[in-house]
Amino acid sequence: MNWLEDSIMYKRGVASGKLGETHELSEGRQGKFHYTIGPYSEPVMEIEPGDRVIVETRDAFEGKIKTEQDLPSQKLQVPFLNPQNGPIMITGAEKGDVVAIHIESIKPRGDNPRGTCCLIPRFGALTGTEYTAMLNDPLPEITRKINLDEEGVYWSKRVMIPYRPHIGTLSLSPEIDSINSLTPDNHGGNMDVPDMGPGSITYLPVRSAGARLFIGDAHACQGDGEVCGTAVEFASTTTINVDLIKNWDIAWPRLETDQLVMAIGSARPLEDATRIAYYELVQWMAKEYGFDLWDAYMMLSQCGQVRLGNFVDPKYTVGAAIRKKYLKSI
Amino acid sequence: MNWLEDSIMYKRGVASGKLGETHELSEGRQGKFHYTIGPYSEPVMEIEPGDRVIVETRDAFEGKIKTEQDLPSQKLQVPFLNPQNGPIMITGAEKGDVVAIHIESIKPRGDNPRGTCCLIPRFGALTGTEYTAMLNDPLPEITRKINLDEEGVYWSKRVMIPYRPHIGTLSLSPEIDSINSLTPDNHGGNMDVPDMGPGSITYLPVRSAGARLFIGDAHACQGDGEVCGTAVEFASTTTINVDLIKNWDIAWPRLETDQLVMAIGSARPLEDATRIAYYELVQWMAKEYGFDLWDAYMMLSQCGQVRLGNFVDPKYTVGAAIRKKYLKSI
Amino acid sequence: MNWLEDSIMYKRGVASGKLGETHELSEGRQGKFHYTIGPYSEPVMEIEPGDRVIVETRDAFEGKIKTEQDLPSQKLQVPFLNPQNGPIMITGAEKGDVVAIHIESIKPRGDNPRGTCCLIPRFGALTGTEYTAMLNDPLPEITRKINLDEEGVYWSKRVMIPYRPHIGTLSLSPEIDSINSLTPDNHGGNMDVPDMGPGSITYLPVRSAGARLFIGDAHACQGDGEVCGTAVEFASTTTINVDLIKNWDIAWPRLETDQLVMAIGSARPLEDATRIAYYELVQWMAKEYGFDLWDAYMMLSQCGQVRLGNFVDPKYTVGAAIRKKYLKSI
Amino acid sequence: MNWLEDSIMYKRGVASGKLGETHELSEGRQGKFHYTIGPYSEPVMEIEPGDRVIVETRDAFEGKIKTEQDLPSQKLQVPFLNPQNGPIMITGAEKGDVVAIHIESIKPRGDNPRGTCCLIPRFGALTGTEYTAMLNDPLPEITRKINLDEEGVYWSKRVMIPYRPHIGTLSLSPEIDSINSLTPDNHGGNMDVPDMGPGSITYLPVRSAGARLFIGDAHACQGDGEVCGTAVEFASTTTINVDLIKNWDIAWPRLETDQLVMAIGSARPLEDATRIAYYELVQWMAKEYGFDLWDAYMMLSQCGQVRLGNFVDPKYTVGAAIRKKYLKSI
Repeated sequence: MNWLEDSIMYKRGVASGKLGETHELSEGRQGKFHYTIGPYSEPVMEIEPGDRVIVETRDAFEGKIKTEQDLPSQKLQVPFLNPQNGPIMITGAEKGDVVAIHIESIKPRGDNPRGTCCLIPRFGALTGTEYTAMLNDPLPEITRKINLDEEGVYWSKRVMIPYRPHIGTLSLSPEIDSINSLTPDNHGGNMDVPDMGPGSITYLPVRSAGARLFIGDAHACQGDGEVCGTAVEFASTTTINVDLIKNWDIAWPRLETDQLVMAIGSARPLEDATRIAYYELVQWMAKEYGFDLWDAYMMLSQCGQVRLGNFVDPKYTVGAAIRKKYLKSI
Repeated sequence: MNWLEDSIMYKRGVASGKLGETHELSEGRQGKFHYTIGPYSEPVMEIEPGDRVIVETRDAFEGKIKTEQDLPSQKLQVPFLNPQNGPIMITGAEKGDVVAIHIESIKPRGDNPRGTCCLIPRFGALTGTEYTAMLNDPLPEITRKINLDEEGVYWSKRVMIPYRPHIGTLSLSPEIDSINSLTPDNHGGNMDVPDMGPGSITYLPVRSAGARLFIGDAHACQGDGEVCGTAVEFASTTTINVDLIKNWDIAWPRLETDQLVMAIGSARPLEDATRIAYYELVQWMAKEYGFDLWDAYMMLSQCGQVRLGNFVDPKYTVGAAIRKKYLKSI
Repeated sequence: MNWLEDSIMYKRGVASGKLGETHELSEGRQGKFHYTIGPYSEPVMEIEPGDRVIVETRDAFEGKIKTEQDLPSQKLQVPFLNPQNGPIMITGAEKGDVVAIHIESIKPRGDNPRGTCCLIPRFGALTGTEYTAMLNDPLPEITRKINLDEEGVYWSKRVMIPYRPHIGTLSLSPEIDSINSLTPDNHGGNMDVPDMGPGSITYLPVRSAGARLFIGDAHACQGDGEVCGTAVEFASTTTINVDLIKNWDIAWPRLETDQLVMAIGSARPLEDATRIAYYELVQWMAKEYGFDLWDAYMMLSQCGQVRLGNFVDPKYTVGAAIRKKYLKSI
Repeated sequence: MNWLEDSIMYKRGVASGKLGETHELSEGRQGKFHYTIGPYSEPVMEIEPGDRVIVETRDAFEGKIKTEQDLPSQKLQVPFLNPQNGPIMITGAEKGDVVAIHIESIKPRGDNPRGTCCLIPRFGALTGTEYTAMLNDPLPEITRKINLDEEGVYWSKRVMIPYRPHIGTLSLSPEIDSINSLTPDNHGGNMDVPDMGPGSITYLPVRSAGARLFIGDAHACQGDGEVCGTAVEFASTTTINVDLIKNWDIAWPRLETDQLVMAIGSARPLEDATRIAYYELVQWMAKEYGFDLWDAYMMLSQCGQVRLGNFVDPKYTVGAAIRKKYLKSI
C-alpha cells in the first residue's frame, strides 16, 4: 500500500486523498514575485482542497546570477531576495485549520539547468554577519555555477553530489505580520529543511482566511545547516498537491514522510529552535498518539532524531522527528 | 547653553532646531491603532521637519486591563497587543535619511492615572515561553494596577519608585516587512530602552518614502531588562519634536542625551544584540568623531556603558553608549 | 578489505594497526572512580600504543538507582555523578600528539542487565535549569528501569528500541584544568554523540604527558540531543583499542567510521558548538584532503551532515561530518 | 554612620566587623602564581575571619607585556594567563558557609605605574573566537601601554578616563573542579564586574573546607562588557578584609555596596547569565527581605539594574541589582 493512504493528509484532509483539478502557476501567470509573506499581497489564484498546482519557482537569486563573474553584491539588492510564488488561496481555509502540502516532484527547469551557490559577504555561519556583528574583514565573495540534472549535482571535477531536491521556503501568511522571505518562523518561511522534498507532506497552520500559500527557493541539494549560507539554488518546476485539514490546532510547522513525523521550530539561539521542535513533538505524541507526556519526553531522549535545517537565516530552523514505527500501538 | 543646541538633531536636521507647527494626535484622530509597523497602513497625518506632535498613546494592553481581576488571558488577544499611533508621514524623508525624534515630555493621561503590570503566562525572562519552550507549568497570572503621578509610581505600601517615563516602542517602517509591534529590530520597534525618555533624541533610519513614524507603549518606569515581561504600562500624552537629517546612512537606531550617545541593537541571543550595539558605536566613533577604529574599540573596553533594554521580547535590545566628554577633541 | 586498514588510526598510528597487549580494567582494579577529568588524579594503569583495554564502566548514576522508586534527588549527590574509569597513561604521548580510541565493542554487564533513565529536577532541555534559570515549578522526578540485551532496549510494553550502544564520555586530560565529568569541551568529556559506538574511532588531542585517558557513561541507546537529560544509562564492558598518533595538531575531538569523518565541538549557545564543528571540518578538509578552503566551506553547505550530541549538559555538543566518498580524489 | 556597620558582612560575619590581624601577601611570599582555581594547589597562608590581607597582584599578562612592541602571541602562552594569588585558607570555613571580601583599597604598584590593554587575535566580543569560530581573518594584534595614577588613566592624548579600579577575578575553590582563571562560574572566577571595587563587599559560597580564596586581575578601569577582551590591566596592591558567614546557603556570588545589593551570574548565552542574576536576586528578596516572590519579580521589572561584567570570557557575567532603599520596610 502506498504510505500516503495512511498519511495524516489523506486521513484527515477535506479531499481525503482524492486528486482535484491541476493548475499551472507559470512564471508568466505569477507575474510579480513576492519578497514578503503576509496578508497584504494580491492572490495569484484560488484552488480547492485536493487540487494540484504545478509551480515554476525562480531560484533564490531570481536568476540574476548568470555566470561565475556575477557577484551577489553587484547583482542583488537586499531585501529583494528569495522570490516567492503565490499567494495561492485555498477555498474554505480559516484560522485554526491546517494546510497540507504534498510535494509530488521537484524538477530542474530550463534546457541546461544549472544551480548557483554564492559566498555572500557578511552572510553564512562561519563569518560575522549583520546580527553577529564582527569587526573582521568579510570573507571573499564567490559565485559558483553548478551543472545538475535529476541524477546529480556536478559540484566540481572531483565531487558529484546526488540530486536531493527540496523546497527551502514554504509558508502560509501570518495573521498580521508580513515577513521577508529570508526569515523562517511559526508560519513556515525560509526553513531550509532537506526533508521537505518529493514525497514529503508539510503541515502549516492557517492564520488568515484562505490561508495564502507561498512557495519558492528550490534547492538541488543541501547539507545540514546550509553552512555557507546558500545551497545549490535553482529554478524548478515543483508539483504540489494541497489539502485542507479543518480544526487542527498546531502552533508550528510539521512534516510527514513515509518513515517519520517531524515538528519544526525556528528561533535563535539554536537551542531554542531545538526546544520548540522537541516541545511540539512531545505534545503531539501526547495529544494524538496516546503517549503519557513524560513517557514521550523520556522516550525521545532515546530515539528522537534531529535535523538541522539552517543556522544562517535570521532565525535558525530545526526539525525533531520520531520514526513512525515507534508511534504504532502493539 | 541648552545642550540641544549642540545636538546632532539641531546641527544636522533640516529644521536646524527651529520649531514648526504643533499637531495633535488624539485618540480620536488616531482612530484605529496599529499592531504592526510596516508600509501597508494608512497614514494618520503628514508633518514637516521641525514640527511638534502631541500624541495620546494607549497603554500596551490598550486599556483593556481595568482592574486587578482582569487577567491578560481573558482580556487580550495575541497578536493584537501594544497598539501604536501613526503612521505619521514626514515630508521629504527618503530612504537613506534619518528621522530624529526629540521627546519633549511624557505625561500621565486621565484623571486618576494608573499603570498596569501583568505577569502573563509563558511571557517574561524567568519562565518558559513560546520560543524558549519548556514543559514546566506556567507561572501564575497576576495583574497589578499601580497609582502614579509625575512624582512617583506607588508600587506597593512598601515601595515607591520615581516616575521615570519613557517610550517603549518607537519606529519607522521597514522597507517591505510589516513587523508586529512586540518585536524590535533595526527599524526600532519594541526596544524598551529606559533612556528613551523626556529630553532624549532618538535617530531612526528611513527605509521608505515619508518615513512612516509609529509611536506607543509608554512606561512610567522600567528596570533594566523588563524582567517579568511588562513595565508600568500607562496611557500617556507624549510630546515629540521631529526633524529630518538628510543622507545619514545608519543601519540601527541611535540615541542622544545631554550626557551620552548610544547605538542600539536588537537580536537573539543577547550577546548578538550587544555586539550590534558596540559594533555600531565603534563604527560611529571612527566615522564621525575622528577615532582610529581600533583605538575606539579598545577604548570602549575601558569606558563603554551598556543598557539592557529588554530580554523578554521576540528580540532582545541593548544600547551601548559613550559619554560625550570622551568624544571631544582636546 | 576491512575499512580499518584504511583508517587514520591504522595509517598514522604508532602501532599501525598491530594489536598489542590486552589489559583488564575491572571495577576492582579501578577502585576509586573519578568525577573530574584532569591532571591531578592517580593513574590506574599505563599502556603501550596498540594495546587493548577491556573496561568495566559504571552507569552515570554509579549504580545507585536500583529501582523505579529510587529518585535521583535522594540517591545522587552533585557533583559526584558520571563516574569515569582511568586515567590510563599512554606511553610516549606528549602535548601535540593525538590518541586514537577504537571502540571494539560495548556489552551490557551483569546477569539481568537493565538501563536507567531519570527525569531529574532542573535538568534536561525542556525545563528551567541551573543555567537557564526559571521560576517555574520543576518537572516531576521520574525513574525508569529498562530491560535490555544486545538486541534491544525494552522501553515499554509498546516500544522496543534497537540496542545502539555508545560511550557518552571519553576524554584526555586538559593541560591544567580539572573538569567535572558532566561537561564536554575541547578535551572530549561528556559529549554524548551516538556515533561514538562500536566500530568508531575517536581522536583526542593530547594536552599532557601520558595523555591520561578517561572513559565512562555507556548508553544502550540515545536520541539526538538527549532531550530529557539522560539516555538509557547502563553498566558496560567496553573494549577499546588505543593508539598514538605523533604530532597531529588538532584543537577539538574528531571521529571516524567506515562511512564518514566528523569534527566535534562543544559550547553554548548551540550555534557556537555547530560553528566549531564545521570550522574544524573545513580546516581539516583544506589541510589534509587537498580542498581549497572556500570550496570546502561551500561544498559542506551542500553535503555536510550534523549530529546533535546533547543540548542538556553544561556545554552542548555537535558533530559535523562529511561522507568519505566525497573526500576521495577521482 | 558608616554604611558598613549595616552591611551583611558586619551583621552576620563571625568577626562582626571587628578587624583582626593584617597579613602581607607580597609577590615574594606568593611565589608561584596560579592559573586554575581549585582544590589541588598548596595554600599560601591561613587567616582568621576578620583578618586583613594586603595582596600584591600581578597584571593579567603577568607583567610580560612591557612595551607596545610586545605582542601577546609572542609573550603569552595559553593557558598560563591571568595569574592568581592564593589560595588563602580561612579558618573555620566549611561547605555551606559564605566568605565575605571587603575590598578596602586598590592601588597601583610600582614607581611609574602603567596599565596594559591588548587586542589579542581571536579574543574579544567583536571578532571570531575559539568558541564563536569564524573563517574571517583575525583582527590586528595591538598592545597599548597606558600611564595611570590614582586620579586617572591617561588613555591617549585625547582621552583621560577616571581611575575606577576593581578586581576582575575573585574566587573560592569549587568542590572538585579546578577551573582556569579566565573562566567565571558560580565559584566566582573571572567575572570582570566593575562594581567590585574599593568599598564593595563580595560574598562567595564556600565549597570546600577552608574556602581557598584566590584573587587577581586588577583593572584600573573597565567599560561594561570589556568589549575588546581586555581592560587596563595593572599590577596592584589590593587590601581586603575577609570575614566568614556561617550557614548562608547561596548558589552564586553576591555583592554589596552602600547603595545596592547585586546577584551575579555567569553563563552563555548572555541571557542565561542575566537569568541567573535576576533569579538569584528574586529569591534573595523573597527569602531575606520579606517580599512575596511574585511581587519581587514584578517589582524588579520596574527598578532592577543590570551591569554587564564581560561578554568576552569563556562564560559571560551579569550582575542584577536593586537599590537598598527599595529593600527597607516603611
